[in-house]
Amino acid sequence: MEPLVIAGKAFQSRLIVGTGKYKDGAETQAAIEASGSEMVTVAVRRVNLDRSKESLLDFIDPQRYFLLPNTAGCYTADEAIRAARLGREVGLSDWVKIEVIGDQATLYPDVQATLEATRTLVKEGFTVLPYTSDDIVFARRLIDVGAAAVMPLAAPIGSGLGIQNRATLKILREMITEVPLIVDAGVGTASDAALAMEMGADGVLMNTAIAAAANPILMAEAMQHAVLAGRQAYLAGRMPRKLYATASSPLEGISR
Amino acid sequence: MEPLVIAGKAFQSRLIVGTGKYKDGAETQAAIEASGSEMVTVAVRRVNLDRSKESLLDFIDPQRYFLLPNTAGCYTADEAIRAARLGREVGLSDWVKIEVIGDQATLYPDVQATLEATRTLVKEGFTVLPYTSDDIVFARRLIDVGAAAVMPLAAPIGSGLGIQNRATLKILREMITEVPLIVDAGVGTASDAALAMEMGADGVLMNTAIAAAANPILMAEAMQHAVLAGRQAYLAGRMPRKLYATASSPLEGISR
Amino acid sequence: MEPLVIAGKAFQSRLIVGTGKYKDGAETQAAIEASGSEMVTVAVRRVNLDRSKESLLDFIDPQRYFLLPNTAGCYTADEAIRAARLGREVGLSDWVKIEVIGDQATLYPDVQATLEATRTLVKEGFTVLPYTSDDIVFARRLIDVGAAAVMPLAAPIGSGLGIQNRATLKILREMITEVPLIVDAGVGTASDAALAMEMGADGVLMNTAIAAAANPILMAEAMQHAVLAGRQAYLAGRMPRKLYATASSPLEGISR
Amino acid sequence: MEPLVIAGKAFQSRLIVGTGKYKDGAETQAAIEASGSEMVTVAVRRVNLDRSKESLLDFIDPQRYFLLPNTAGCYTADEAIRAARLGREVGLSDWVKIEVIGDQATLYPDVQATLEATRTLVKEGFTVLPYTSDDIVFARRLIDVGAAAVMPLAAPIGSGLGIQNRATLKILREMITEVPLIVDAGVGTASDAALAMEMGADGVLMNTAIAAAANPILMAEAMQHAVLAGRQAYLAGRMPRKLYATASSPLEGISR
Repeated sequence: MEPLVIAGKAFQSRLIVGTGKYKDGAETQAAIEASGSEMVTVAVRRVNLDRSKESLLDFIDPQRYFLLPNTAGCYTADEAIRAARLGREVGLSDWVKIEVIGDQATLYPDVQATLEATRTLVKEGFTVLPYTSDDIVFARRLIDVGAAAVMPLAAPIGSGLGIQNRATLKILREMITEVPLIVDAGVGTASDAALAMEMGADGVLMNTAIAAAANPILMAEAMQHAVLAGRQAYLAGRMPRKLYATASSPLEGISR
Repeated sequence: MEPLVIAGKAFQSRLIVGTGKYKDGAETQAAIEASGSEMVTVAVRRVNLDRSKESLLDFIDPQRYFLLPNTAGCYTADEAIRAARLGREVGLSDWVKIEVIGDQATLYPDVQATLEATRTLVKEGFTVLPYTSDDIVFARRLIDVGAAAVMPLAAPIGSGLGIQNRATLKILREMITEVPLIVDAGVGTASDAALAMEMGADGVLMNTAIAAAANPILMAEAMQHAVLAGRQAYLAGRMPRKLYATASSPLEGISR
Repeated sequence: MEPLVIAGKAFQSRLIVGTGKYKDGAETQAAIEASGSEMVTVAVRRVNLDRSKESLLDFIDPQRYFLLPNTAGCYTADEAIRAARLGREVGLSDWVKIEVIGDQATLYPDVQATLEATRTLVKEGFTVLPYTSDDIVFARRLIDVGAAAVMPLAAPIGSGLGIQNRATLKILREMITEVPLIVDAGVGTASDAALAMEMGADGVLMNTAIAAAANPILMAEAMQHAVLAGRQAYLAGRMPRKLYATASSPLEGISR
Repeated sequence: MEPLVIAGKAFQSRLIVGTGKYKDGAETQAAIEASGSEMVTVAVRRVNLDRSKESLLDFIDPQRYFLLPNTAGCYTADEAIRAARLGREVGLSDWVKIEVIGDQATLYPDVQATLEATRTLVKEGFTVLPYTSDDIVFARRLIDVGAAAVMPLAAPIGSGLGIQNRATLKILREMITEVPLIVDAGVGTASDAALAMEMGADGVLMNTAIAAAANPILMAEAMQHAVLAGRQAYLAGRMPRKLYATASSPLEGISR
């Protein structure tokens, strides 16, 4: 199957995973492995980047996994920009997932600040993957300023609600042809991930769905299968939906 | 992972596939293989059971796959009973999936006739897997007369609508402890299958979702991963659902 | 607007209400009045039918409201038949809503017993309105034995889940042309009732949604408006659904 | 019942209607009347404001209806600002519904431009009702710059998809206490409007749902009842939702 290509870099796995909220580094490592992911995000502001000391990074083999720094914990464009630069300075990566939060309770993104940070960092040569809302106007702007992907939420971070915005995600999928569209945030269980891929997403990014499961390792494995299943179903071209097998008229208003 | 056990027989795969609606025997065979299924259903009334002539059965290796005769095309208990006996007579199996249709247009089951056929065939020593509606009273009766599983539809056969009856399936899952609960009919794409398994179904049976996909072989593979993903997610114990990560009050009325 | 006609009797209101679960007779009366209903159901087995003593019936003016006895609390066809006869004997009515429960926990109907009771009572000259599941085969049978309406549940009695079976209700609406189709059970709030009417139901029957609201009188009024709104929307012919206003391709898989 | 109060002005009706897309002025007038609305929006850029010539305004009695100019057809903050000023200049109103479109195909709002226009016009003494997305960060900003209400879409303008963003609307309802929350855009039929009101919206604004119905006058009436039904249901405090009446455990994952 075709790989997921972001900024010219190919990934076989279309599942990207975060590294927060696990019990410890060992569990993080085991979960990542079970997920089959090739790219993992690391919160620049929350992880000890000093490789001479003990750190989460000890558990993530940079030979094996592509590390994507993220700016979790940032509330302004400026904070996100500085966090991205820090990630590059310590030799982590010049890729960055931009996450600028606009509401502390719900962790909803500040799309304006996200756009500003993206614009600045693209000019500084970063490969920027912005986490954003499902705002289609801002999605277009992010692409225009050089984002390497668009990563809209399906539902609030850590809610586990699954795809809560099918209509706008469908519009985004129709509209975005220049860069990968990666659903990021809100996934709660395997069928959510499969659905995102069936809707045509190029990839899915998740953290809490795996880390907060009773058995994260097994859930990580489930997610690997789910993302693959959804992608294959998308490529396979699903059967038509009808009220019943012999129905002739088009189906209105029924969905799962 | 624990196998699916039906009437004392263990199956590693929790995906059961039908063999109707394919282009030809070769495609059927390739799809079954890609699905990873161990049990396949064969319509007794539609397939040439005479192994001396050319038949669909030539494409399904009985050493590799467990053949489950089904009574597709039957509209009365009597027809179903005779079809089951035929399946046993030609040495196919003394297992049978009972399918008695009550409405020709929608292929909705006749649950009363299904119950009668089940009762009779159980007494004759068959292992009976009845395809039925999500009627919980009839589900209980089917178990009481000795059904080896209960197989409620998710949506009409061949509709591809996915799970259209979450509430009753949830009730059935809560209620049925004696035999496997296998969702049969209505699956359209991978996330439907994953969802059924996440709801706690012991297995999923499908035919059209694979056969009517543009690329059945790839869809069969997707379904293998989907059923596995859903089962693993179910066992892994998914994260809680909340309106947002820091929300304290219970979530009301939001679902995917 | 056209009235709801059942067995030749015309009702302006398409909302039918039950009389159980209220605080007292006065609240019941006020709620019925606020609902604008013309027909109310009364549980034959639970209400004191002896008009010489104090009874719920004192609060329901038979000049103003059409009393529909129901067989709530019956678990066999026989019990339901005897309850119906009792209702007729005390001069209540020779109409009856048949309710035969098959599962005590979920109050799911026993459709087979419902069919038997309906058949018998129709022969005895009753006007029978059977409460049933969304089983389309049994719906057809109920019509064939002379039911004056078909009354499928939307969700379990007292669950308040709203329409949980859109696909089968849609099929029922398409299929049933001989008698009114009245959604009975499962309504929780106003939009549920409106939706049932928009789907083409001829009427809605509810009890708990009103009686268990914090303010039953106000909810009864809401339901009057909701049923009217849904009926008018159905007759008015709603706008098409599209992904966005200028979209040309048909919409797939998005619903409210 | 309590009126809807916007910027100190009380409205008995919580339904606000647009005046676009009708067959002619007479139909517009009849629909508005049937809707029971007290406030109607008029597109400043599309309607002849010169009352000396023939105009849509001839059909909307300013003694009877509160005219709310809207900036439909504007694609920048500047255009919206100038349209608002024009509305005030011709004596129409110093209220304005801000509508700045960011994507021509989907009519999705440009929330940044909306914010800018709102900020400027509030300073100039306008009462500003901004049509926006369900972005909760921008909603907060609109309130901070003095918006008199927040009017998020339920789905794209003219899509008729109903509430496609329950989760974010729920968050908005929880979060917004300072000004009315009015769902604007995406309503397709009566139950959509009822649902918006049951979710706690203070009002609903719609245009296409009425104008594009086969019978707009009847649909307008339906909408009047629907908004009232939803509001009353919200105030009445609906019954709890459970899998079935006697279920004890909390309900997970089932919704209408």
